[in-house]
Amino acid sequence: MIHKTINKPVIRTRTMVRKNNIPKDNDVVRFCALGGLEEIGRNMMFFEYGDEIVAIDAGLQFPEETTPGIDFIIPNISYLEAKKKNVRALIVTHGHLDHIGAIPYIMEKIGNPPIYTTLLNKEMIKRRQEDFPNAPKLEFEIVKRGETRQISENFKVEFFGTAHTIPDSIGVILDTPVGKMVHPGDFRVDYDAEGNPQDMDVWEKIGKQKIHSFLLESTGADKEGRSLSERIVEVEIEKIFKKSEGRIIVATFSSLLERLAEIIKIAEKYNRKIFISGYSMKTNIQIVQNLGYMKIKEGTIIPLDEINKYKDDRVVLLCTGAQGEANASLMRIINGEHKQVQIKKGDTVILSSSVVPGNERSVQVLLDDIARQGGIIYHSKMVDIHSSGHAPQEDLKIVMKMVKPKFYIPVHGYYFMRWRNAQLAQEFLKLKPEETPIVDNGQILELSKNSAQISEEMAPSYYVMVDGLGVGDVGEVVLRDRRALSQEGMVVIIATLDRHTGQFLKNPDIISRGFIYLKENKELVEDLRKRIRNLIGRIPRHQQIDADYIKTMMRDQIGQFLYMKTKRRPMILPVVIEV
Amino acid sequence: MIHKTINKPVIRTRTMVRKNNIPKDNDVVRFCALGGLEEIGRNMMFFEYGDEIVAIDAGLQFPEETTPGIDFIIPNISYLEAKKKNVRALIVTHGHLDHIGAIPYIMEKIGNPPIYTTLLNKEMIKRRQEDFPNAPKLEFEIVKRGETRQISENFKVEFFGTAHTIPDSIGVILDTPVGKMVHPGDFRVDYDAEGNPQDMDVWEKIGKQKIHSFLLESTGADKEGRSLSERIVEVEIEKIFKKSEGRIIVATFSSLLERLAEIIKIAEKYNRKIFISGYSMKTNIQIVQNLGYMKIKEGTIIPLDEINKYKDDRVVLLCTGAQGEANASLMRIINGEHKQVQIKKGDTVILSSSVVPGNERSVQVLLDDIARQGGIIYHSKMVDIHSSGHAPQEDLKIVMKMVKPKFYIPVHGYYFMRWRNAQLAQEFLKLKPEETPIVDNGQILELSKNSAQISEEMAPSYYVMVDGLGVGDVGEVVLRDRRALSQEGMVVIIATLDRHTGQFLKNPDIISRGFIYLKENKELVEDLRKRIRNLIGRIPRHQQIDADYIKTMMRDQIGQFLYMKTKRRPMILPVVIEV
Repeated sequence: MIHKTINKPVIRTRTMVRKNNIPKDNDVVRFCALGGLEEIGRNMMFFEYGDEIVAIDAGLQFPEETTPGIDFIIPNISYLEAKKKNVRALIVTHGHLDHIGAIPYIMEKIGNPPIYTTLLNKEMIKRRQEDFPNAPKLEFEIVKRGETRQISENFKVEFFGTAHTIPDSIGVILDTPVGKMVHPGDFRVDYDAEGNPQDMDVWEKIGKQKIHSFLLESTGADKEGRSLSERIVEVEIEKIFKKSEGRIIVATFSSLLERLAEIIKIAEKYNRKIFISGYSMKTNIQIVQNLGYMKIKEGTIIPLDEINKYKDDRVVLLCTGAQGEANASLMRIINGEHKQVQIKKGDTVILSSSVVPGNERSVQVLLDDIARQGGIIYHSKMVDIHSSGHAPQEDLKIVMKMVKPKFYIPVHGYYFMRWRNAQLAQEFLKLKPEETPIVDNGQILELSKNSAQISEEMAPSYYVMVDGLGVGDVGEVVLRDRRALSQEGMVVIIATLDRHTGQFLKNPDIISRGFIYLKENKELVEDLRKRIRNLIGRIPRHQQIDADYIKTMMRDQIGQFLYMKTKRRPMILPVVIEV
Repeated sequence: MIHKTINKPVIRTRTMVRKNNIPKDNDVVRFCALGGLEEIGRNMMFFEYGDEIVAIDAGLQFPEETTPGIDFIIPNISYLEAKKKNVRALIVTHGHLDHIGAIPYIMEKIGNPPIYTTLLNKEMIKRRQEDFPNAPKLEFEIVKRGETRQISENFKVEFFGTAHTIPDSIGVILDTPVGKMVHPGDFRVDYDAEGNPQDMDVWEKIGKQKIHSFLLESTGADKEGRSLSERIVEVEIEKIFKKSEGRIIVATFSSLLERLAEIIKIAEKYNRKIFISGYSMKTNIQIVQNLGYMKIKEGTIIPLDEINKYKDDRVVLLCTGAQGEANASLMRIINGEHKQVQIKKGDTVILSSSVVPGNERSVQVLLDDIARQGGIIYHSKMVDIHSSGHAPQEDLKIVMKMVKPKFYIPVHGYYFMRWRNAQLAQEFLKLKPEETPIVDNGQILELSKNSAQISEEMAPSYYVMVDGLGVGDVGEVVLRDRRALSQEGMVVIIATLDRHTGQFLKNPDIISRGFIYLKENKELVEDLRKRIRNLIGRIPRHQQIDADYIKTMMRDQIGQFLYMKTKRRPMILPVVIEV
């Protein structure tokens, strides 16, 4: 619900002189996404007008098959770093990692602007910041749903409440010199159990303003139908509670806080105690509880240590790991590595989440192991016990129809999803393709009153990878090597030569990993040594050692020899030691 | 349809004397799967009675995340190899790679028994065998649907037609001293456009025999509902043909031969020519055409070279690559590497396949790239243009109800799927858990007239991996190294020491791949060198060089040092060269 209480504008002390050389009618607001448009995650975007920049979200992306070994990927903020004096605010729409996870890494670089966000988001961001003792202290501007703030001379922002899977999520209406731009962040439409859309007045009010551009997420744009009502999810989960006689183990995301609140409520109804396993789950529930967003009766949550003192039919265990993540609680339970809990016959296990693409195999392992250990499984493909937080086609249609923007800009999600989203707007709002621009990460969209043009200028948007303490030091070379090593392994060949005669001082040393098990392939190793001796023996003795030449020769010829013998191409690493 | 024409029994010349020490009423047929029960693929099973063994299928499995770099995984046939004199037959149910792919690797080892199969399967097996010039010549016994053969003294086999996605697929009724055992291989129920199940008379006839055990696939057992009618698939594809004005590119599996036949038929109806890209697609279509299983009008198929001579609205291109496979035709088309075809605006691209778990990301890339290049995409999540070949729950229920077995043995698929399948039989046939045994790969199920017991004896069933020319030489050690290398890379440290003084003859050499880019981290490298010199400097000079001690020390301490500096754990490979 939007309350039109305009707050006292928060004018920052930085220079905000309007550039007079830009004629007013050629005014342009530049929009750019630094991440989130060619992936799921790493969401970050900004709006720029003259020397004012407002950024929205700073999320992380989990690694992919092509980026082995890294911890995660964060948005590339070089563009903002170069203009950090201009960055007036970072607005955070909600507290999920794909929208806040990069904050500890980037805030200092973009000038540590104030973070405009709601209370819960602030607490989630602060919680994460604790893991980064060297990160700068953050400055927060707490906003409420319905509130409006003058963030800089040219950006006035109205915050509105959105339906997602975590409380306190907000969308923004940016009032700019060019027009009003609306971005709800991640969202879906909430329905009651009868299928009536809820809280439509928010969208109705937005629709009454003249909206210049509407930036809508595309994550669900290739899915037909509408969101499953969270009320139905509740009913289905309650049905399982009703018929379960043993312990109930619920695995879900630790940030799916609205779902967790529902489950705790049902547990209280069925006189079960809640035990929580997993640090993030515990702290997140504590945060919402402290804020009063989750009303939990005293005595409902019991320390995990005491779980075995309670009868099975009084126990609900909340844990992370519904995706089969290696270190999450559920995996530890299944592997027998959990201190308090193992699966036993009669346990009911509810996996209240969808399968994130890429996790299919690990979720299968999870299902297999729980079934083997006697657990009774319910997952979201079997019953309606999960509803995604991302609007599918019918939800998108409802809100686009209410908002009636001049321009419709699909954001968040792979190209195909954004293309589908643009198609929907073309079909449903009768917009022309040039009114539904599909931009990529780093492309700058110049929005004037009556046009949306992709600029030739681009902001850098290549991956910045975090691996251990390193931020951005793992580049394409390192990743290419990791991928190559994972496929065929490597062979190190060390030729120790007399620097004067060029002759071998000892038999070549050969080390190999991930190629073949050398101990079981002595013949091949001997063959290889002989070949190396021959190779180097062919070089005339009077010649000076040319280590580079010898290395190239070894790499080529030994590579060929091994390919002929095995049809595999390990990485060959020749070393010439001259003594 | 089963024709009760009992063929002259094909009695093999091997000894088939019944062991008189087994009393008839304690007769036991041993059933064992060597693959396919804890994975999708690698299907192979056998039945054993006395000194007679009948094997069914010999498929391959594609590599997984945990088996990087290998080509594929085949069944472990050690058990059969040790008893190869007893193996009387390999029955092949259908020509898909997960059922025939391992034949070139295993036939000689299991004694090259005759292969009982249908004509098309034979041709598919022979085609594949051409790639293995050193594999032995195979002996085939061609059987027809409805035919019965006496394979050995105690195994009489009736072959019946099944509905799958490839013609000539067969199921078997093994008539054994213990009772009749039925296994249809992969199957689904065919429905007409109105939803009536087809060819039910096959199952009805089976049900009239007294069936001891029914071995049914579980691949679809966790999916609700019934198979999508292939007639509806046809209708939907035809609709797309009707409205497409440009070229039509259909990507699907090259072995989905019934679908390909439908598409060719529709193309003919709409006066379009067929062009085929992809070797396997071409040869498979040729095989079925030669056998008369696919009636194609003369002039329908045109050589690919000529594709650009035809108007867009007369062109249908059939190609492989609907899973985003790196080397398949569709990927080459999209990457601009295809000789004749690139995607152009107005092309319609039909992806007539589901997404195989694990391929989600590469299919997403495919969709993104086609959309970017202006293609109009239809995939199976958008319209009903694909139907799986594997029976979902309702299909399973229909046939289990008709067959009414004494024992129901779920085969093919992960544990959870087999558990669901067993549950279905318990719910629907009112069988007891001990009548629906869930066995794992390698477990031997002893089937007597009235019981099904899992034996303590097991057949080896661990992975046999094929990597290049190597079969079984890539083991857990090599894979573990590949996985480790892919995560954090490796550092080779070479200390060249004077064998007499134990002193460094030169600065330590450091090579690293997949860890950090050393050229950009000179300081760390210098620091590392210094540490290595210090480490070895601390060893008293009078002491003999203990290379193992030095290596262990380097591995531990350098590992710790690098972890402290980077929070990464590369594989440390220390080498001590004594000169």
